Amino acid sequence: MTKAFYPLLYLAWSDDLLTQKEFESIRGFLAAQSWLPEADRSELLSKVDFSNPPAREELARWKTAAHEVLAREENVRSLFSLSYELSGKDTAFMKARNGFVQLENELGILGEEMLDSFRSPENTLTSRHDTVYGFDVGRMQAILDGDEAAIAEKVKQILTRADFAYFTSTDVTAYREKVYDWCKTLADENLGNMAFPKEFGGGGDMKGYFALMENLSYHDLSLVIKFGVQFGLWGMSVFFLGTEKHHRNYLEKIGSLALPGCFAMTETHHGSNVKGLRTTATYDHASQTFTINTPTQNDQKEYIGNAARHGQMATVFAKLILDGKDYGINAFIVPIRNADGSPIAGVTISDCGLKMGLNGVDNGKIHFDNVVIPKENMLDKFASVNETGEFESPIPSDNRRFFTMLGTLVGGRIGIPRSALAAMKSGLAIAIRYSDRRRQFGPEGGSEVPILNYRMHQRRLMPYLAKSYALHFALRYLTDRFLNRREEEMQEIEALAAGMKSYTTWTVRDGLQECREAIGGKGYLSENRIDALKNDTEIYTTFEGDNTVLMQLVAKSRLSEFRKEFGKLDMAGMITYVYENAKTVVAEKNPIATRKTDEAHLLDYEFHHQAFAYREKTILASAARRLKKLIDSGMDPYDAFNVAQHQMMDVAGAYLERVILERFQSAISEVSDDGSKYRLVALRNLFALHQIETHKGWYLEDGYMESPKTKAVRKLVNQLCWDIRKDAVPLVEAYGIPDSCLGAEILTKPI
Amino acid sequence: MTKAFYPLLYLAWSDDLLTQKEFESIRGFLAAQSWLPEADRSELLSKVDFSNPPAREELARWKTAAHEVLAREENVRSLFSLSYELSGKDTAFMKARNGFVQLENELGILGEEMLDSFRSPENTLTSRHDTVYGFDVGRMQAILDGDEAAIAEKVKQILTRADFAYFTSTDVTAYREKVYDWCKTLADENLGNMAFPKEFGGGGDMKGYFALMENLSYHDLSLVIKFGVQFGLWGMSVFFLGTEKHHRNYLEKIGSLALPGCFAMTETHHGSNVKGLRTTATYDHASQTFTINTPTQNDQKEYIGNAARHGQMATVFAKLILDGKDYGINAFIVPIRNADGSPIAGVTISDCGLKMGLNGVDNGKIHFDNVVIPKENMLDKFASVNETGEFESPIPSDNRRFFTMLGTLVGGRIGIPRSALAAMKSGLAIAIRYSDRRRQFGPEGGSEVPILNYRMHQRRLMPYLAKSYALHFALRYLTDRFLNRREEEMQEIEALAAGMKSYTTWTVRDGLQECREAIGGKGYLSENRIDALKNDTEIYTTFEGDNTVLMQLVAKSRLSEFRKEFGKLDMAGMITYVYENAKTVVAEKNPIATRKTDEAHLLDYEFHHQAFAYREKTILASAARRLKKLIDSGMDPYDAFNVAQHQMMDVAGAYLERVILERFQSAISEVSDDGSKYRLVALRNLFALHQIETHKGWYLEDGYMESPKTKAVRKLVNQLCWDIRKDAVPLVEAYGIPDSCLGAEILTKPI
Repeated sequence: MTKAFYPLLYLAWSDDLLTQKEFESIRGFLAAQSWLPEADRSELLSKVDFSNPPAREELARWKTAAHEVLAREENVRSLFSLSYELSGKDTAFMKARNGFVQLENELGILGEEMLDSFRSPENTLTSRHDTVYGFDVGRMQAILDGDEAAIAEKVKQILTRADFAYFTSTDVTAYREKVYDWCKTLADENLGNMAFPKEFGGGGDMKGYFALMENLSYHDLSLVIKFGVQFGLWGMSVFFLGTEKHHRNYLEKIGSLALPGCFAMTETHHGSNVKGLRTTATYDHASQTFTINTPTQNDQKEYIGNAARHGQMATVFAKLILDGKDYGINAFIVPIRNADGSPIAGVTISDCGLKMGLNGVDNGKIHFDNVVIPKENMLDKFASVNETGEFESPIPSDNRRFFTMLGTLVGGRIGIPRSALAAMKSGLAIAIRYSDRRRQFGPEGGSEVPILNYRMHQRRLMPYLAKSYALHFALRYLTDRFLNRREEEMQEIEALAAGMKSYTTWTVRDGLQECREAIGGKGYLSENRIDALKNDTEIYTTFEGDNTVLMQLVAKSRLSEFRKEFGKLDMAGMITYVYENAKTVVAEKNPIATRKTDEAHLLDYEFHHQAFAYREKTILASAARRLKKLIDSGMDPYDAFNVAQHQMMDVAGAYLERVILERFQSAISEVSDDGSKYRLVALRNLFALHQIETHKGWYLEDGYMESPKTKAVRKLVNQLCWDIRKDAVPLVEAYGIPDSCLGAEILTKPI
Repeated sequence: MTKAFYPLLYLAWSDDLLTQKEFESIRGFLAAQSWLPEADRSELLSKVDFSNPPAREELARWKTAAHEVLAREENVRSLFSLSYELSGKDTAFMKARNGFVQLENELGILGEEMLDSFRSPENTLTSRHDTVYGFDVGRMQAILDGDEAAIAEKVKQILTRADFAYFTSTDVTAYREKVYDWCKTLADENLGNMAFPKEFGGGGDMKGYFALMENLSYHDLSLVIKFGVQFGLWGMSVFFLGTEKHHRNYLEKIGSLALPGCFAMTETHHGSNVKGLRTTATYDHASQTFTINTPTQNDQKEYIGNAARHGQMATVFAKLILDGKDYGINAFIVPIRNADGSPIAGVTISDCGLKMGLNGVDNGKIHFDNVVIPKENMLDKFASVNETGEFESPIPSDNRRFFTMLGTLVGGRIGIPRSALAAMKSGLAIAIRYSDRRRQFGPEGGSEVPILNYRMHQRRLMPYLAKSYALHFALRYLTDRFLNRREEEMQEIEALAAGMKSYTTWTVRDGLQECREAIGGKGYLSENRIDALKNDTEIYTTFEGDNTVLMQLVAKSRLSEFRKEFGKLDMAGMITYVYENAKTVVAEKNPIATRKTDEAHLLDYEFHHQAFAYREKTILASAARRLKKLIDSGMDPYDAFNVAQHQMMDVAGAYLERVILERFQSAISEVSDDGSKYRLVALRNLFALHQIETHKGWYLEDGYMESPKTKAVRKLVNQLCWDIRKDAVPLVEAYGIPDSCLGAEILTKPI
């Protein structure tokens, strides 16, 4: 009969969680089994003497006895029934039943979990889950590449050459030279001038240039930024802000990297508020020259790429002063270095020094001490000084002119998020492929399980996998809109670009963070490249416009769109209209929608889109109403916009998410391959439901959804993460990133 | 009369947002003013000819006219009334009124915002906000330091010496030597052996050791980790796992850094699942030796601090094999280097190479090829081999013994979050002090405003300021609990430490991210140290236990606590009891609590605590119920815990937040200085309400709050952020971090 108590004895000694007090409970229980023969009881009590532990062999014998029963009897589900089996189903043993149940509770461990320690389990649900190649990766990649496949292929061919092996030393000087050499190689391959007009030796292919930047971003991001500074910022500023004489003089040399240059806009004290910059360009009609000057240290050009080491010239933004009057910000080509690499007289260049990332880019500060340049160095597309020395511009407002100039450079806000997204794809490819192979923990006694099978791991990575696809299509759409823009769409496109830049780079920041943590210590080693991906993209949320500032601009643009749409109503009327209209639409169409939880409904694109669009409209109307109320109450509009800043973030975010969802759906509708389509729909569902889950506080607060629905959404997000896990590896393979570009040791070592 | 239209003309040309189409609207409007003399109308129309822009002087004249009216007339609130004033209040002008209103709407800009471009505004609400020294910083610092002031002072005195100037080169070899030298200096100051017993030359001051680690963390974190590896991990493992002979032989040499060593636990394939490690220590009774061996490459010791360069010995965790039988994991002292620094025969050491951060720590991999050590090198506090060659242990279960051994090392999970929090304090001190001085944007025509006055900026930083205080007190509490523990509290304290380690390091990760972004490009430059703070602490979420894994342990511990508390009920009964009980309590005490929004209620600690405690209990009960349901339905418990992983995170998080809130309140109750107390209460309110806002989705889903209440909470969070902003600089000064330790260039340069 003592055999029936073996499992209990084993648990008493093996369980790491039992305290001495609980130990006493077991003694108490045994002592209370008065139906047991006295000898048996004494023997059992001697086995649970804290000061006299059993030998290991005895422990093993106890465990084996229990294990044998469990292997034989499938239906044993409690400690008592296990013990009962061991008693040989002795009816006397039933007397111990109540005591057992009570004890199980007191010991504070689930009965099944306890039993588990005796089992050599079958394959569990979690163990069995695995990668399945259920669709054609090549076809999926073709869908992602679209009509950019050829340029993608060309870029990757170059990047996988031996001389593009990653630079791994911490020697910053050597790193910068390496990055310069890479840029030179790309220029030699006719990639630097790709976007310049054919008449100046270029490729005349702006679309190709965006594709190029994206694919380059599978490699070192210092290379991408250095490349972008030279051919994008420096080259494009000459192209877009200059006129034919500048194009003739400079574009070919810029495109071949014969003339490295800078884009010198940001000043120390004038970063986000770029309108406030204070460098001056003072015109002298007698000598037909401009004098470029930095008034104080706070006004020097800062963070300027290509400045610290390689740049020979710079597009400098400065206030044009003519006859003592300020004509606003204009752009000038200013030489900064002599042929021997020394700064020209009057120019002081200092190095920004070590940075968190992008150390292959030579960022510097430039200070101008009355540097004289000829009149023709003014980039004079939007303003000029005429032959009689008067200022001329088709755009008389300084502000408007400046923003028109900036508008021509909006391409940067398309290239940057595309580059960022490529970096996140690299991170996801590394993290997901590793997590599919890395095993930790497992069912008691069973093999360890790939960590990608764990719910939290899926929860961390799968939503970003879905977002990578969603953003991919949205950024292609943004690019197309920009390339095929009509003048009157420009404001909308600028706002969309500013928004997508912010939304994407923040997503990438968070996604790469999850990648780092998901692969643990391996993610901390530079050899696995998450380090570089994270630190290089860190500044993407700040440069080309601080994200928070840009999101405010997007929101303001949405407010003005909103008003245009309802121009005939007064403000209050508009708000009421939109707000009530949105509510009514929903209420009418779906009287029980707020509590509807069936899967067909929750996986329906129409539901997702309606929820996104409703949120967008409602937040927008609410922000407009709030602003109006504040201003009506006498608050300075500047203050009112400050008070509403937090809400403005939501206005912008809700708008962007609606656009992203629509573009994902639109892309899917063009897919003919069933296998790919099925996965894309799953990713779209996960993207949509995960966002709805993220915003559930808002939906509940608004009353658009009630708790049964938000709970059902959560459950479905879990399920989608679980389902997509088996496609995750082929889905990151479909990004088409060469292994040498991923450059992660953990992917090449046997595991 | 044409003068009345100047503002409109100015806006037509100056506003950056108007499109050509809107331009046409203005022309249409002017053309429709049939009451105007034909000549006036023609003149006006000639001024809005897109192909013939006005001269700058004309633009300026228009603006000035409008400006003069606005400076004089305070009550002008629309474009129409401005124009009406300019008409000299001509009644004929009233005929233009409807047209104006319609136009204002069509142009899509708020009327007040438009007017703003003509104003030189008074100081606005936003501009006026500023730092106020409203309390005694020294007293606040004294509250934070508590009884650790003396050790804090001593550490800071050392850290501010010239030879502790930060190392700024990228030469990793030199950096490691620098960090070693710093450790040596600290050891010479008798800080290395602080926690060791006095009989072995130590300070016998464990409490002081924690304070030391925290204050050291205001400096280079490589130093902190190297220091912790040597004196904490290596030293404490000898102290806690060894016996007197080891203490006598080693502690003094360890404490003086005469004997640098390692803590070799983690293996390549056995990181989080440390029970699975596979290094063996095979006993041979004839020679009275153990042979330490690494079976495969995957089983080598990895990430081992002090290994790559300085370590001479290591505490190695290995499975003890005796007569062919496995006796579980035990610890052994194994020499790894000869006196000349070369590895001893059989030991292969490789360098982990560059890391994302902490590059001053020489992490390495160690491979043992049958390295023989004498029997006495077994750290034999919890297990030993007796004189007849038999295994002996007071804890027969291998598992339980191993976790007992790990339990003695739980101090690491207290030191790490305290170190992390110190790093976040540094980041906040840098970001908040800079944001208080850095100005960007401002009311139209007014001065630029400190960026800390912007709502989003406050929203990003103030909640972390509040959390830094909340966590400070909670970590002091954890330390005290650990130092004054009774045996039966150990499980609870271990869970609390695991949880606080995770919660704190994740908070720090997010807080430092906000600091980086809040200071923009300056935050990307290494000279401002956010770089180092972020990258060095990045691994804190992984080492000393992966956060996600630890949170699961915390949740499991909570589940078992929960059951103990209600031991007498069966599982279902318990759940019902807790769940209903919690609901009832709330419902009874506050029949209208779910919609209560008055400020006195929302700022009441009782409300906060009840909300936190309710959430904790409800989530716990719900998780327990779910697990039981899954297991009852036949799911393998291993799978059930995987399915519930996401919920388990919430179980742990809700528990930790309740504890943190309670400890904050408890600390406040002991404060006598009114000025400090007032600020601490504000910070506690912000912490509590910000968490409630973060979890509003849960509260709404549960029905504990309804939307008027969650909306009121949001509003109050905004208000608290706004209010605390003026105290923010003194509040970070109260951390007491020396400027040289902050080491941020942006704080020392004039602005």
